[in-house]
Amino acid sequence: MRTYASVPFSQVKITGDFWHERLETVLTRTIPSQLAKLESSDIRGSIKLPKPVPPLTIPRQSNNFTVQYFWDSDIGKWIEAAAYALSHRRDAAIEAEIEAMIDDLEAAQEDDGYLNCFYTQREPEKRWTNLRDNHEMYNAGHLLEGAVAYYHATGRDRFLKIMERNMDHIAATFGPGEGRRRGYPGHQEIEIALVRAWHATGQRKFLDLATYFIDERGNTDGVDHYFDIESRARGEDPAGYWFGDYEYSQAHLPVRQQTKVVGHAVRAMYMYAAMADLAAEHDDAALRAACEALWKDVTERRMYVTGGFGPSEWNEGFTKDFDLPNDTAYAETCASVAMVFWAARMLNLDLDGQYADVLELALYNNALAGLSRDGAHYFYDNKLESDGAHHRWDWHRCPCCTMNVSRLVASVAGYYYGLADTEIAIHLYGGATTTLPVAGGEVTLVETSDFPWDGRIRIAVTPTPGTGRFTLSPRIPSWCRGASARLNGAPVEMTVERGYLKITRDWAAGDVLELDLPMGPERLYAHPDVRHDAGRVALRRGPLVYCCEQHDNAEPVNRLRLAPDAPLRERREPGMLGGLVLLEGPARAEDATPWGTALYATARAPARETTMTALPYYAWCNRGSNPMQLWLQEAAD
Amino acid sequence: MRTYASVPFSQVKITGDFWHERLETVLTRTIPSQLAKLESSDIRGSIKLPKPVPPLTIPRQSNNFTVQYFWDSDIGKWIEAAAYALSHRRDAAIEAEIEAMIDDLEAAQEDDGYLNCFYTQREPEKRWTNLRDNHEMYNAGHLLEGAVAYYHATGRDRFLKIMERNMDHIAATFGPGEGRRRGYPGHQEIEIALVRAWHATGQRKFLDLATYFIDERGNTDGVDHYFDIESRARGEDPAGYWFGDYEYSQAHLPVRQQTKVVGHAVRAMYMYAAMADLAAEHDDAALRAACEALWKDVTERRMYVTGGFGPSEWNEGFTKDFDLPNDTAYAETCASVAMVFWAARMLNLDLDGQYADVLELALYNNALAGLSRDGAHYFYDNKLESDGAHHRWDWHRCPCCTMNVSRLVASVAGYYYGLADTEIAIHLYGGATTTLPVAGGEVTLVETSDFPWDGRIRIAVTPTPGTGRFTLSPRIPSWCRGASARLNGAPVEMTVERGYLKITRDWAAGDVLELDLPMGPERLYAHPDVRHDAGRVALRRGPLVYCCEQHDNAEPVNRLRLAPDAPLRERREPGMLGGLVLLEGPARAEDATPWGTALYATARAPARETTMTALPYYAWCNRGSNPMQLWLQEAAD
Repeated sequence: MRTYASVPFSQVKITGDFWHERLETVLTRTIPSQLAKLESSDIRGSIKLPKPVPPLTIPRQSNNFTVQYFWDSDIGKWIEAAAYALSHRRDAAIEAEIEAMIDDLEAAQEDDGYLNCFYTQREPEKRWTNLRDNHEMYNAGHLLEGAVAYYHATGRDRFLKIMERNMDHIAATFGPGEGRRRGYPGHQEIEIALVRAWHATGQRKFLDLATYFIDERGNTDGVDHYFDIESRARGEDPAGYWFGDYEYSQAHLPVRQQTKVVGHAVRAMYMYAAMADLAAEHDDAALRAACEALWKDVTERRMYVTGGFGPSEWNEGFTKDFDLPNDTAYAETCASVAMVFWAARMLNLDLDGQYADVLELALYNNALAGLSRDGAHYFYDNKLESDGAHHRWDWHRCPCCTMNVSRLVASVAGYYYGLADTEIAIHLYGGATTTLPVAGGEVTLVETSDFPWDGRIRIAVTPTPGTGRFTLSPRIPSWCRGASARLNGAPVEMTVERGYLKITRDWAAGDVLELDLPMGPERLYAHPDVRHDAGRVALRRGPLVYCCEQHDNAEPVNRLRLAPDAPLRERREPGMLGGLVLLEGPARAEDATPWGTALYATARAPARETTMTALPYYAWCNRGSNPMQLWLQEAAD
Repeated sequence: MRTYASVPFSQVKITGDFWHERLETVLTRTIPSQLAKLESSDIRGSIKLPKPVPPLTIPRQSNNFTVQYFWDSDIGKWIEAAAYALSHRRDAAIEAEIEAMIDDLEAAQEDDGYLNCFYTQREPEKRWTNLRDNHEMYNAGHLLEGAVAYYHATGRDRFLKIMERNMDHIAATFGPGEGRRRGYPGHQEIEIALVRAWHATGQRKFLDLATYFIDERGNTDGVDHYFDIESRARGEDPAGYWFGDYEYSQAHLPVRQQTKVVGHAVRAMYMYAAMADLAAEHDDAALRAACEALWKDVTERRMYVTGGFGPSEWNEGFTKDFDLPNDTAYAETCASVAMVFWAARMLNLDLDGQYADVLELALYNNALAGLSRDGAHYFYDNKLESDGAHHRWDWHRCPCCTMNVSRLVASVAGYYYGLADTEIAIHLYGGATTTLPVAGGEVTLVETSDFPWDGRIRIAVTPTPGTGRFTLSPRIPSWCRGASARLNGAPVEMTVERGYLKITRDWAAGDVLELDLPMGPERLYAHPDVRHDAGRVALRRGPLVYCCEQHDNAEPVNRLRLAPDAPLRERREPGMLGGLVLLEGPARAEDATPWGTALYATARAPARETTMTALPYYAWCNRGSNPMQLWLQEAAD
């Protein structure tokens, strides 16, 4: 049973500077520039069928694979992000562009509902022969999410109908019944899309198909593994699979038996999000227990301090417990976006601040780092240390992260609140106004703050007459020490239950709740088994993790050493990168001069005094490539 | 002009325990077990022509490449190592095996002298069409080295004649004259082999061919780059080259213009060795200057503390200055073996202890680590940190390192001495007896010591009557502090010139020189720009670099923290892994218990007292896989 419901972002107006600026950048810069990139990279053109089959823009790899298999998904994600933009502000030109895309997709859809521009154009006889590798369902999922978003934004259901026919085709092709194949996606995504479609339409068939995919995944109970069956049907030996085993796509075990977070990180996070959705929809205790075990595993052993996931480039995913290298971190932007999805669904299952803490961490740090200040440059992988070679790019041969971060920012307000019959949970802060149904009435919440720079939050509560007694549950983040609250000026007893301050009363118009969430800078240390962070310290202030960029430091950032007791000063810089708070403090840095040309010596280089300056991680690499260090050396001397 | 000549290993008898044990292991275990592996892996069978072409044992990669192209080189290297064994002790069975191999090679050689079993058997029409990738000259070089070694060991020249015909064919095919192609090897190696053949036979044509290869390499003066010409002739676009540019094979510039150590490390080191050879042969100042610049570059910026080279698996080679990651270190065994070759040649050019220091470092640490205690297991890559996953293997799909380490150990005595007209330089210690021509006579040197465990060295000097005044120049290693010497019991003034103590006198039978080379344990620190070693310390005793293996430590080795002033005790363990000296001392290790399940916390875990135990790096991983840490955390608290 779902305890709390998400509040759609379109019901929440962002007023705070921090997210308002990011949102405006996405609406005015990111979405148009992404459209231009879709056109120049031929992705937009690839859905215009029929036409002579052009050569592949991106050649196949040796295993006959090309990222062009995914291009439909990029169209779907861009439509989704653009539709979120339309929910904020209608735009006739963008709508015309989306309608033209829908025209093309409608034309490309086959009579039986099949819709995949790559296969229909290039190898129609091979459709549905390689679910393991070629992303047909992943594409369909993203198109479906785009269709749902466009329907919500405009009320127009043509795209949704196209995708409904497509889902009907898929449900007729795959499933448990006679004459159907027991397949499921190699890259999970369609499952959360189907749940969204179910919520948007109330049509149970969407939920049923999502449920089938999750239930069937990794099933070898009396049947061969579907990816084996499929491989043999293609004339391939399943043992020749590039990734060795099906942990890569979390299809190595039925999902309810999974307790270790493994494989490709984005696949994993999308699947866990869908599992949390279905655990709520079906009140499925086994599914919920699996979600909780996986959550525990990832947050206790396999998460970067930035809320990044998946250290390895090889599988774009997970490796071993405590294996969190900094300079080679993959920590794909998409994986953190997907973590926001999963965490939000866990919060709906169970109002526990640990989920919101990780949601906030991933959102403000690893995910947000993926989008540049100018809104048109991106990180795909998010390293925690760079010698200066790592840099933002304006497009990628696999542009998945670009539209993932834009759709996240455009809908960020959807993660602010959780709603129950007589309770409103406030997960995130940052200046927002919303009106929500609660306790038989409605209440308007006007939150004003300078979050994430300042932890003083003001919430004006205005219920409509007739609204009953309800609980307002603002979150007290785990990074906060000494939180306090005042209601109409009077101190509130801090009855914090699992990260939420519960205030139950007969709220009245004019009520003002003030929170003070101190966010003094803190030092963070990694578990002793994280070998890469041994002897090192990270800095955090509120939800933001900090790093040292060479631009702001006189000494090479990899040489900086911070004493355990060195004071950390906050310095507000309103004019820097949109306004931010820097951290600075006395530090020491080894001086290489006395070494001459020696590579190794029998005495450590003398250290000289310097000042360490750190900025929020999300803001790095917006002034050109330069070295960056997140985990600093800590030494008393 | 070559200042000093190497002394062939066969003129030096190893008597010291350390190398005697390794040598016996190689003779009795390694060489026979390698022969068995050559047979079971089909490498031995691959030179038996003609026969029906069998399928490739090792499939081609997507770029049409297979390591089976190199198999002739493995035969050559095994013959070379086995011939060195025969120089120590004749063995009829081994000789019969080599003769049978020579029969096969003789039968496989084509009428025009071409000899390459892979091409002749599988794709004769493609011979000499891809010098860049396919190792024909590399194979020929290793076969030639095998032929020279077998000739030295047995006096039989049949194999040498085969290889002379092969070299004549190569010289007729490639070179500057009319009707020849201006090619050179994609994987350097043949150059040093040709110099060996020149020394063995006195036939200038070998030296001329080596000189041509070095002079022509990377030449684009009025001609296209040879690898471009060749690529186009194959119908391939040179721009599609997997490694991007010809730095990979050090063919990006003429060798005399090279100042940065780049690309594939083994290719590089073999080439630099040949350059040093030719600089001496031709008294070529430009070539010598290039060697010196490259030496400076690699030892000041691109060398592991273990004498390992080439951090990256991707190119099996070099990356950037100061980029020396520990847990992903490639540091191929072959590259350190090749460094021994290069350093020995630099020492012959110029008696400077810096060359011997690096020779000794690479020999005793990274290279020797490549061979297991049992003589039948190997490291290809030599990491400086392992979570326990890295382990020795008993063979490799590309077994280059196995026979490289065996040929090095079997000929290690060849690196002990340098000989000039009236000077004998002693580069290495460890118990050896030799008789050398000097100053118109001969002198017998009997060095006795327990090196590398003890720095007290005794050298009995016995000149034959009529031997003139000469200089004995024992090396004072750079790791040694407070070296002293006594001659016939009287202190010797320590006139150390660039690492060598120079004692010139009329030596007489009965003279005894005693050296005391203190080798107390020392701490080593890396240059502040080696980010991976920041805040860390390594331990060294004499020529040996130490590491902590989990077997010997109660706390996880990645958690060990050593105080800068913690005492280091030596502990002799005669029964452990053939006998060695351990280092131990008080240390601290973070206790993860108070963390519970947290991955990050705002306070460092408390540290508890423990004992750190370190063993020589060469000896690690002989008791099963387990975690290992070389660079330990250093902290005062």
